[in-house]
Amino acid sequence: MNIEARVAIGIDLGGTNVVAGLVQEDGQVLASERERTRPERGESAVIETLASLVQRVAGDRKPAAVGIGCPGFIDPLRGVVLLASNLAWTNVPLAAKLEARAGLPVVLDNDVRMFTFAEAKAGAGQGYPVVLGLTLGTGMSAALVHQGAIYRGGGFLAGEVGHIPIPGIPYRCSCGLTGCLETIASATGIARLARETVQAGTPTVLASMHERAELLTAADVSQAYAEGDPAAASILGQVGRTLGEALSYLTPMLSPDAIVIGGGAAQAGEPLFAPLRRTLRERLLPMYGDRVAVVQAKHLDHAGVIGSAMYALSQRSKE
Amino acid sequence: MNIEARVAIGIDLGGTNVVAGLVQEDGQVLASERERTRPERGESAVIETLASLVQRVAGDRKPAAVGIGCPGFIDPLRGVVLLASNLAWTNVPLAAKLEARAGLPVVLDNDVRMFTFAEAKAGAGQGYPVVLGLTLGTGMSAALVHQGAIYRGGGFLAGEVGHIPIPGIPYRCSCGLTGCLETIASATGIARLARETVQAGTPTVLASMHERAELLTAADVSQAYAEGDPAAASILGQVGRTLGEALSYLTPMLSPDAIVIGGGAAQAGEPLFAPLRRTLRERLLPMYGDRVAVVQAKHLDHAGVIGSAMYALSQRSKE
Repeated sequence: MNIEARVAIGIDLGGTNVVAGLVQEDGQVLASERERTRPERGESAVIETLASLVQRVAGDRKPAAVGIGCPGFIDPLRGVVLLASNLAWTNVPLAAKLEARAGLPVVLDNDVRMFTFAEAKAGAGQGYPVVLGLTLGTGMSAALVHQGAIYRGGGFLAGEVGHIPIPGIPYRCSCGLTGCLETIASATGIARLARETVQAGTPTVLASMHERAELLTAADVSQAYAEGDPAAASILGQVGRTLGEALSYLTPMLSPDAIVIGGGAAQAGEPLFAPLRRTLRERLLPMYGDRVAVVQAKHLDHAGVIGSAMYALSQRSKE
Repeated sequence: MNIEARVAIGIDLGGTNVVAGLVQEDGQVLASERERTRPERGESAVIETLASLVQRVAGDRKPAAVGIGCPGFIDPLRGVVLLASNLAWTNVPLAAKLEARAGLPVVLDNDVRMFTFAEAKAGAGQGYPVVLGLTLGTGMSAALVHQGAIYRGGGFLAGEVGHIPIPGIPYRCSCGLTGCLETIASATGIARLARETVQAGTPTVLASMHERAELLTAADVSQAYAEGDPAAASILGQVGRTLGEALSYLTPMLSPDAIVIGGGAAQAGEPLFAPLRRTLRERLLPMYGDRVAVVQAKHLDHAGVIGSAMYALSQRSKE
């Protein structure tokens, strides 16, 4: 059977779940499957799971390539996972190993770059030449896709904006520094602000949502906002302004045409985005603050799968 | 006579002076000439001056192309000066006009990008894949050269880091905003701090250098530092720390391998660079703060000429 040059498999490899999808050149997902990652089984077992997923989502089709998005530090040129904390992997030559098992060319990069590639090519950033993608999840990270190319920086280390130090943030980050952006601008950060709001005795519906304030999540804050809770609005406003401040440092240097924000916490939507945009306009010259589009990601679930597959296809077409 | 594929003319077009040089592929300047720009004569007269300079520096050689670096906003794809305040030019199709006069292909970009291209290819950034260039002059600006390509951003607007808002800076900028980085981190900013130091009655040799504190320059501060003046050391320390703070916002996103600092005020050297590096190491993860090289530009005079010529050659070799 002939290889289909316009179909690839994208894999979103996380510490908890791995999702694989059969994806068309235009970003449409034809089929997808999900498994638990269970990294405690060791690297070979996880790679077996990936190979099995590839086979299942391919069915009787013959995709051209496989792309994998993986959190952590990746060497995309050699296809090696340098360090992925949530998989407990160091220097794993994932591309070569999966190629040997699956019989298909495999490319690899970090998950935020794959998310941004998807949004730039077939999502909320489509049509913008320079797209800055942000994901607000447990942590926070960024990637830049300019004219269809992924910017990786020296040592492939570009994009760790979660660890930009923001003046006035008092929280200690898991990285050991104090004041990192992601201690506020992430799902974890929003949950922390919710907990502090309740613990400070502020009147809020958040106080009645869980037995213990420690159980509050970013989704709870969105729900409280939807119920008209002023404390929830204040939390999302603070997060939006903090993100706006961080982006005011980056925007004159990068001049993105669009900033696309995804990850679980981005589902908060306008209560987060409106103060973000206002902060950018207040702090920057109009040629930056008014020019840049700040938009919510289109692909809430499958961006990693779509981006990985589309990136794999883009690399095949270069050969 | 045959065209020499490895020799080009670079032009550094400023509001006061224009310098043209005949430059080899490796960055060596074979000949150069300088004229007053006198933009008040109008655009045609300035272009005549450029054409005459091209002829004079070429002599009996036949260079492959001409590159021009020009301060302001440039459309490098069309070769148009969109806005150059110090020439009072708007939408001038400079590349096409000089091509018609000089009979050579002409490329165009802003002066900081040409400076950074020179330093990345044949200067202090040579050997580093990702180079962030900064110039500290009347204003302050930046450019990014990654794997030999100039990053321009949406609308070709990338690099205006002089207008990043820095918390705590009280000065109003010529752009209308308050707190812009370049109100401190520039030759103008250093001169302002020198003036304020004298006017505050601080004991300093700066006080005896001019009849009026308004006449103090960035070079005076370097000279006072060389004479052991603590107030001058304090000024350069403040500027270095402010630059370090700004770069701590940019470095996790860009991950440059090297930051090359040029422009007149960079001649202050280590009294400026040491606090800058210390601030980066204090504020960032070691994978950024320890990894990035912060170095003084190699080409103090001719970076614009060299970069423009080398960029012109790099574009010819693509055809």
